[in-house]
Amino acid sequence: MIKVLEDLVDALSTLPAIGKKSAWRLAVHLMERPKDEVASLADAILRAREELTRCKRCFSYSEKEICPVCESSSRDQRCICVVEKAIDIFAIEKVGRYRGVYHVLGGVLSPLNGITADKLKLKELKDRVILENPGEIIIGFGGSADAETTALYIARIFRDIDIKITRLARGMPAGMELEYVDQLTLSQALNERTEITYGNE
Amino acid sequence: MIKVLEDLVDALSTLPAIGKKSAWRLAVHLMERPKDEVASLADAILRAREELTRCKRCFSYSEKEICPVCESSSRDQRCICVVEKAIDIFAIEKVGRYRGVYHVLGGVLSPLNGITADKLKLKELKDRVILENPGEIIIGFGGSADAETTALYIARIFRDIDIKITRLARGMPAGMELEYVDQLTLSQALNERTEITYGNE
Repeated sequence: MIKVLEDLVDALSTLPAIGKKSAWRLAVHLMERPKDEVASLADAILRAREELTRCKRCFSYSEKEICPVCESSSRDQRCICVVEKAIDIFAIEKVGRYRGVYHVLGGVLSPLNGITADKLKLKELKDRVILENPGEIIIGFGGSADAETTALYIARIFRDIDIKITRLARGMPAGMELEYVDQLTLSQALNERTEITYGNE
Repeated sequence: MIKVLEDLVDALSTLPAIGKKSAWRLAVHLMERPKDEVASLADAILRAREELTRCKRCFSYSEKEICPVCESSSRDQRCICVVEKAIDIFAIEKVGRYRGVYHVLGGVLSPLNGITADKLKLKELKDRVILENPGEIIIGFGGSADAETTALYIARIFRDIDIKITRLARGMPAGMELEYVDQLTLSQALNERTEITYGNE
């Protein structure tokens, strides 16, 4: 009926968990707000997408070439927690107990869905480990079968390298994505992380 | 941790029914989408807010001085449906049965909340009726007590003017906002609208 409004509803409908009805409500809400408030929302969206890049070392979100965690002298740069997605880092940081750094893999192996080793930052992880020689790699994945496979795959990559590889305790609820886990469970899983010894499981 | 991302989460959190967690998920989703898709969302928000104005006749959303419904020769310009909010028009249009035009009041009378007659487009409605001399006013409100009061108030405004004033059938679920009503109920309520005769209720 009114093109600019329909365009907005269509654009909002592309967001996750926003259906046509929610999109209408959001659109109408925005139309009732002061122009400068609406402009600052649009600006926040644009700026975040424009200015946010990936840390060249850990592939987390960053405004600079190297992210604040990688740059921080108060973090243990020799302990690398490998996570599936950048959002997982925010979940771990919220617990406030982890003092090491991260490596964002970009997913877990899932050959049936076309996610093979070359689609993930696995080579980058290996290169980084060889270059930096860290003391420990913590595999910080959720509890899916693909995540298990990927954990073992990583352990195998480093079978000839003298490095301690641990994973989050199996306290993780099976099949649940890391970002949905409550803080207590995540904290326990960090504490009880166990070493993966490739070949004698 | 990362300012542009936190700014975006804060901005998204101001939207209705979007909590902190949903805002994070939306923000991360946006960061993973192509830049042009994100830019077009921001643009749709800005453009809708900039270009959308209010129809000078019915106060519905419009891109021009007069909205498409008011301009349409296929609509019955002598039947005016008075609604609380512009979004209510979309609900009625979706039913696809109403062929008249609208008048957006901007709310219903609610003196305790400071919404007095002068805050609503009541004077504009009276002026419009005197100028246009329509055959019927349909009061298309939800079922709240304030809406009932406002319906009677409108009937009183026109007590000395020869005009048929009807309201949506009482099939409306009590206390529910018009925009949430299912289409069948709304359709029945349109069909069974009843005349308000001021003074002998």
